[in-house]
Amino acid sequence: MALESLRYQRGSLEVLNQRLLPEQLRYERVGGVERAWGAIRDMEVRGAPAIALLGCLSLAVELATGAGPSEDLGALEEFVGQKLGFLVTARPTAANLGREAERLRAFVRQRVETPGVTPQQLRESIIEYIEGLLEKDRRDNRNIGAHGASHILGRVPGGGPITLLTHCNTGTLATAGYGTALGVVRALHQRGSLSRVFCTETRPYNQGSRLSALELRHDGVPVTIIADSAAAAAMRERGVHAVVVGADRVAANGDVANKIGTFQLAVAARHLGIPFYVAAPSSSCDPTVASGRLIPIEERPGTELTHVGGVRLAAPEVDVWNPAFDVTPHELITGGIITERGVFAP
Amino acid sequence: MALESLRYQRGSLEVLNQRLLPEQLRYERVGGVERAWGAIRDMEVRGAPAIALLGCLSLAVELATGAGPSEDLGALEEFVGQKLGFLVTARPTAANLGREAERLRAFVRQRVETPGVTPQQLRESIIEYIEGLLEKDRRDNRNIGAHGASHILGRVPGGGPITLLTHCNTGTLATAGYGTALGVVRALHQRGSLSRVFCTETRPYNQGSRLSALELRHDGVPVTIIADSAAAAAMRERGVHAVVVGADRVAANGDVANKIGTFQLAVAARHLGIPFYVAAPSSSCDPTVASGRLIPIEERPGTELTHVGGVRLAAPEVDVWNPAFDVTPHELITGGIITERGVFAP
Repeated sequence: MALESLRYQRGSLEVLNQRLLPEQLRYERVGGVERAWGAIRDMEVRGAPAIALLGCLSLAVELATGAGPSEDLGALEEFVGQKLGFLVTARPTAANLGREAERLRAFVRQRVETPGVTPQQLRESIIEYIEGLLEKDRRDNRNIGAHGASHILGRVPGGGPITLLTHCNTGTLATAGYGTALGVVRALHQRGSLSRVFCTETRPYNQGSRLSALELRHDGVPVTIIADSAAAAAMRERGVHAVVVGADRVAANGDVANKIGTFQLAVAARHLGIPFYVAAPSSSCDPTVASGRLIPIEERPGTELTHVGGVRLAAPEVDVWNPAFDVTPHELITGGIITERGVFAP
Repeated sequence: MALESLRYQRGSLEVLNQRLLPEQLRYERVGGVERAWGAIRDMEVRGAPAIALLGCLSLAVELATGAGPSEDLGALEEFVGQKLGFLVTARPTAANLGREAERLRAFVRQRVETPGVTPQQLRESIIEYIEGLLEKDRRDNRNIGAHGASHILGRVPGGGPITLLTHCNTGTLATAGYGTALGVVRALHQRGSLSRVFCTETRPYNQGSRLSALELRHDGVPVTIIADSAAAAAMRERGVHAVVVGADRVAANGDVANKIGTFQLAVAARHLGIPFYVAAPSSSCDPTVASGRLIPIEERPGTELTHVGGVRLAAPEVDVWNPAFDVTPHELITGGIITERGVFAP
């Protein structure tokens, strides 16, 4: 069984506290929205899909355990709206959560306007809607993995085995299961076509060496950790066939916002003639944003870079620039964008 | 006064224990060759020029304080030879120390063969020779700084102020003073032409955030730390005018071996049209190596990447690839190689 970011059954939700990894593997109970908000803000859970699901599922748990008004449709709609409004303040740049919250609001609106719906039916339908998101994420990721694996194998003479390089964590710990870029890694591995995957450390939060390496090793996938600085050297000297990363947001023109460092990986891959893929569910595409230049970039506290577990790694009182993401222009995505529907040129 | 890696006066030598930085600033007495050997092996001092100077100066201190035979030229030559032979075993890949040891041996040989030289004169001339190395390193670095600053200012319309990006540590903590790439930074700052310098963290040993940031801040130079992954984004979004790095070794064709990550910085700089400079004394050029492909790359223990101060940062029992250097092909060194004699196309 893979390491999961979330464990959900109706009325019950647990989150794997990723801040404690790799030392401790601890699932913590999430009784409702407030606890989910803290887990998102404090980065106990990360990865845009997992954040969105944790938020929505925490609301489903509240509804399943009887929270909120039960007599009045309008009051229940308001209750849900308030909970969602609160959730999205936990990490303002976590776009998926914002988008899912909006869709859920629209769904609730539509249900409220449907003649004859009772408050109990509304409650039930919201829970089912949210549970559907969980199922969809898992199904989409398996399809992403299958499409990506086939596309990459089709480009490599002889059809493998394949050596990949990836960045950050986009696996079972970032999604509801399987993963996006790591879904492609898993699919190749399950077909017996993966030679090895290089995981960048992914400073400052070390999602690659802490999380990707952990979950891949857990599943028996051959994995090697490298410093972020060693990525281009690994591509050149270790026979990397393709680079596959995830995406936080894809603009209408195919520009991709993803973990800081993605842009320079794409530049290195193009310089070395190695195809560069982005794996993301089609829901990551945001047609309202024309180009990557318009995507706001979250800047995080400098202490993430200068301290590890309270230990200072850097000179004191020095200015730090710590952007969480960067934008990779579409022309560098030479392999394609892998979605649950297939692989597309950006 | 700058943070110095070494403090020397005839008969007395101290080394700044860089393992204790940035928490503690402690200079430790080096009474002779044995203590220097330990400081080099344990990386209390690093940076090829500083290692070579610490080793040679520790011998000068022994000679100035009366160690070794005083009656016989041959015995004194043998004493010096043994001390040098021992020193170079401390870090076999520290090429500068090996080269300086060979030159010093040749110098001693020539002095021994000079008619009429007394053991006391031989001793004195060895001390002066070694003190000359210290002076030369400082003088060369100041010239590197001056040439580099003028060249960069000449390329920027309006003549500055300049924003630079650098990698690893090549400053007062890696040399006898002033620095190579950081010498260029200092020279621009002293001319009032430096806007800011971005220092990459430089995983896995954090020479950028621990050492470069420390020594530059000490000198009042505006410095910002970034993750290694943020380098291309900083170049694109923070108005970086030029990238300047050091070199461990320059091959005859201009290929450069330097700290892991240098290659991908050069690729990013070329993609963005930003000039890429290598600053190194001409003694770093090795005409016996035709191309960078022939330079052996030291692979260091994976624990450097997976642990910090005994704390595990990464998943346990995972394979790590941790090369200390990479090779940047000469065609990517678009700014030039800055030496004490001027700036040259590779």
